Amino acid sequence: MQSGSDSVLMHTLTVRTLDPVSEAALGIFDSGVGGLTVVRAVRDLLPNEHVVYLGDTARLPYGSKSPETIRRFAAEDIDFLLGKNVKAIVVACNTATAHATPDFWKNCPVPVIGVIKPGVEAALANPDAERIGIIATRGTIQSHAYQHALAQRRRGLMIHGVAAPLLVPLIEEGWIAEDVTRDILARYLQPLMAKGIDTLLLACTHYPLLIPLLRGMLPDDVRLVDSATTCAEDLRRMLDAGGLRNPREAGGSLEIHLTDLSEEFEELARRFLLHPPGRIRRAILD
Amino acid sequence: MQSGSDSVLMHTLTVRTLDPVSEAALGIFDSGVGGLTVVRAVRDLLPNEHVVYLGDTARLPYGSKSPETIRRFAAEDIDFLLGKNVKAIVVACNTATAHATPDFWKNCPVPVIGVIKPGVEAALANPDAERIGIIATRGTIQSHAYQHALAQRRRGLMIHGVAAPLLVPLIEEGWIAEDVTRDILARYLQPLMAKGIDTLLLACTHYPLLIPLLRGMLPDDVRLVDSATTCAEDLRRMLDAGGLRNPREAGGSLEIHLTDLSEEFEELARRFLLHPPGRIRRAILD
Repeated sequence: MQSGSDSVLMHTLTVRTLDPVSEAALGIFDSGVGGLTVVRAVRDLLPNEHVVYLGDTARLPYGSKSPETIRRFAAEDIDFLLGKNVKAIVVACNTATAHATPDFWKNCPVPVIGVIKPGVEAALANPDAERIGIIATRGTIQSHAYQHALAQRRRGLMIHGVAAPLLVPLIEEGWIAEDVTRDILARYLQPLMAKGIDTLLLACTHYPLLIPLLRGMLPDDVRLVDSATTCAEDLRRMLDAGGLRNPREAGGSLEIHLTDLSEEFEELARRFLLHPPGRIRRAILD
Repeated sequence: MQSGSDSVLMHTLTVRTLDPVSEAALGIFDSGVGGLTVVRAVRDLLPNEHVVYLGDTARLPYGSKSPETIRRFAAEDIDFLLGKNVKAIVVACNTATAHATPDFWKNCPVPVIGVIKPGVEAALANPDAERIGIIATRGTIQSHAYQHALAQRRRGLMIHGVAAPLLVPLIEEGWIAEDVTRDILARYLQPLMAKGIDTLLLACTHYPLLIPLLRGMLPDDVRLVDSATTCAEDLRRMLDAGGLRNPREAGGSLEIHLTDLSEEFEELARRFLLHPPGRIRRAILD
């Protein structure tokens, strides 16, 4: 037993010598491939970093499921990434971020950031923002996590959330330029337009693909905010504060793991990343 | 060890005396609550039977996932039902039935029936059926299980399958009487109408809820076929052949287990069953 535990220690020391923490990968996860919009923003802003992405495609979507189930899934996703020795974790899933409690992250041995704080900060970057609309999955809207975070940061905001459960399947069907998608979006936006929103927060990592369509449907003075870019900026600040930025200039890498593999997911991954995803691996979480 | 195994034997004998196999429950499972349309048909036709239903709502939908993943999920669903000592199992999920292989069922210690054979029989009950349209999830269409089963039974059929992945989310959103649902359905039906189908097979247990809308959209001479009723008839034949019908006239019961519980699923369950689902229990499969 004694020698076994020594050899584990030696192994750990060897790994650390070859691979200091700052050179370890970032772990990013989502219920599916939507989180690749965050990966794209992270790779644009932090090109030296290695990224390990996990998409829980076998159990997607998370947006319609209960907080308890989502927390169980997220814990398993994090365990998988910790097994890849990541130095920090990004929860690139609004529903998982929305249902996580402070206690939930506390036991994680590496720093964790979600997408809600960056999204809220992006929405409030405009000091004149007063009437904020949010579109998201049912789970994210019902959690009131965005509404609460916005209200905590600025008093007197008018906040209106709309659950838009059909947008993810429409995007995954590839019907982004179709009339039915425009009709369904118009229906989801109607109560927000009636409230005279000045800001629309896209609180789901799939929705950036709808930005061109939304831009044509919304009045010019409504600001569109998505959290992918601000999330990447938040991550950079966190890495800098902890001395965790990868100093090597060799160029980062991307490794994608999905719990269910299919041609559709590979095609979707390409659309979310805007370039070929490379070889996708199958992840087993159990 | 000897006494332990004796006591197991005695326990088994005791259980058998109180609860002969024919009085055991039927196990029915689906990826979610769509399979409750089959439960409704089974309870109408076999009112003395006890039914244990499992909906794998934590991992739904199955329709977009790979054959390998679906088979793993189905094996876990069956294990759960066997743990409830069911006398037979109905796979009330088209995708799971479509991806199952004969080998897959062979090791199951109780009889298993799926929804494809009954659906195919219902479609071919009309001897004049020649041009058969199928709408289903992407997984069911891509499996070619319906196309293959139809072609095996009648030569010279023209068979046209259309993957209609948005129908399940539209039904779950409750938008059954909406214009957008009609528009999307029209789009899915268009290639089938162009082929001049005489029969439309609804190859997903969610779709019976669309029958009133479909009836208004299809020409009068197109026959609409769903597998719920024929599946219940198939089950009755199988129980009769095996002497497995419950002889008690006490009235059957229904016990619903879901792997994820939420208010939405309870509301959906009510709509699929057409009456209150009673207390729904949370199932843990791991």
